[in-house]
Amino acid sequence: MTLQFAAMAYMHRLKVRYGETDQMGVVHHANHLAYLEEARTEYMAALGVPYGAIEAAGVGLPVRRAELRYLAPAFYEDELEVSVQLERLRSASIRFGYGIQRPADGAELLEGMIELACIDLSTRRPRHLPEDLRAQLEVEAQASS
Amino acid sequence: MTLQFAAMAYMHRLKVRYGETDQMGVVHHANHLAYLEEARTEYMAALGVPYGAIEAAGVGLPVRRAELRYLAPAFYEDELEVSVQLERLRSASIRFGYGIQRPADGAELLEGMIELACIDLSTRRPRHLPEDLRAQLEVEAQASS
Amino acid sequence: MTLQFAAMAYMHRLKVRYGETDQMGVVHHANHLAYLEEARTEYMAALGVPYGAIEAAGVGLPVRRAELRYLAPAFYEDELEVSVQLERLRSASIRFGYGIQRPADGAELLEGMIELACIDLSTRRPRHLPEDLRAQLEVEAQASS
Amino acid sequence: MTLQFAAMAYMHRLKVRYGETDQMGVVHHANHLAYLEEARTEYMAALGVPYGAIEAAGVGLPVRRAELRYLAPAFYEDELEVSVQLERLRSASIRFGYGIQRPADGAELLEGMIELACIDLSTRRPRHLPEDLRAQLEVEAQASS
Repeated sequence: MTLQFAAMAYMHRLKVRYGETDQMGVVHHANHLAYLEEARTEYMAALGVPYGAIEAAGVGLPVRRAELRYLAPAFYEDELEVSVQLERLRSASIRFGYGIQRPADGAELLEGMIELACIDLSTRRPRHLPEDLRAQLEVEAQASS
Repeated sequence: MTLQFAAMAYMHRLKVRYGETDQMGVVHHANHLAYLEEARTEYMAALGVPYGAIEAAGVGLPVRRAELRYLAPAFYEDELEVSVQLERLRSASIRFGYGIQRPADGAELLEGMIELACIDLSTRRPRHLPEDLRAQLEVEAQASS
Repeated sequence: MTLQFAAMAYMHRLKVRYGETDQMGVVHHANHLAYLEEARTEYMAALGVPYGAIEAAGVGLPVRRAELRYLAPAFYEDELEVSVQLERLRSASIRFGYGIQRPADGAELLEGMIELACIDLSTRRPRHLPEDLRAQLEVEAQASS
Repeated sequence: MTLQFAAMAYMHRLKVRYGETDQMGVVHHANHLAYLEEARTEYMAALGVPYGAIEAAGVGLPVRRAELRYLAPAFYEDELEVSVQLERLRSASIRFGYGIQRPADGAELLEGMIELACIDLSTRRPRHLPEDLRAQLEVEAQASS
């Protein structure tokens, strides 16, 4: 079964660190993945299923797919707003959609998606999403559709 | 004008650093972007157009799109082989295709693509690819088609 | 002239990101430098001399010395408190002292110092601290001594 | 018992990655720790005690102290030579001394030391160095004194 929907976005704010820039004077493209990850884990914590607790239960959610479009550069000291929303829920994977905006000038900096697989941490083999995580995400999906 | 072709792949070897792993015991997904970048810049240097020289001439090649599929995890101390090949050449963008393999067991770890825009570093506005870079990439394209 | 003093500490809170951990299950030791940098630049912004404005005026403050003692590990999702205080002010260098604590259990995780040199960004040669920065830091020093 | 000595240095070469630079146009100071770690683990592997095998045996060697002096900046595409040598061996800690040079112009970029503690990975408590690691390091110490 696949649930597909446009959930309301969770918004997360962060500020660009100096070490995240490169010699082009902008945030290096690899660091946006850290921003998306921070937003995603804050979102999951807000839903009552913090990622640390999921791992403590022996379950991992490694990234299996990422698609990113960089629309405009982010600069040092920029305050950024990362939006994250559930895009697709399957029995053994979750897809989140993302945007990064800079509220100061309204610029759209990135849009993208990240798909997570679900694995058993001890065997590293695929498994179904834990029931409580799936239930919580379905509630979220229905609330926002 | 768009050139599309399957160039012969340039192969680059590297070794996973400890700090590139995360608590899941594997290479954190953001670090693969550094591997692709290292392979891409080695490839460009091998073609006679080192990226440092391009920037010294006032031209930047920021990443504008990335698509990555993570097929299997990489581990600390793994020796990895990154293949990079020119996939598409336009007047103001370059697309490279990538694979990451682990020669020790033949595992395919990642496949993906990165698209670079071309900008004037002083204005940060789009511009055409520098003539020498474009010429060199076209030679490469014809040699491998 | 050298001013030496124990300034009141500026406190900065941050939260450990997943990608900052390594396969030992703790924050990789290099990432603490990013935490100290974030706290230091927040402190300077709070003093009215944001680091971005200093660079915009053609002045850089590169790290020239770092001494760190790691007392206990930080974990994923930990909320950390970084204290930073001015330790020594010279005509062309600034030394900050740091601590990292985890409020949840009161653990002391790190103590250290970072010394910044002052350079002209266009020549990369040493120069005196800008007058407004120095004045602001001296006010801070007197207020807290 | 403490052994103190000036071992012959192990030399490791690496090349600066683009993403390791920051907007000052030089390698960000936190990345030097990754260079030292890469050199240290290559050294240990060359001695026949690869760090991965040490961890596989349940032993961790976390960094407990770092002292770094940055003497000159490293730039993108620089080929660097990192020297690492055993400086002090105690029952439950190892201290390595380091230098980073740029062979192209002979510049000394960094000197520093890193001290590793020894822990049991399952309890995270201090323990003595494993016998084979200690024996190998003592052989190295005698060979070079």
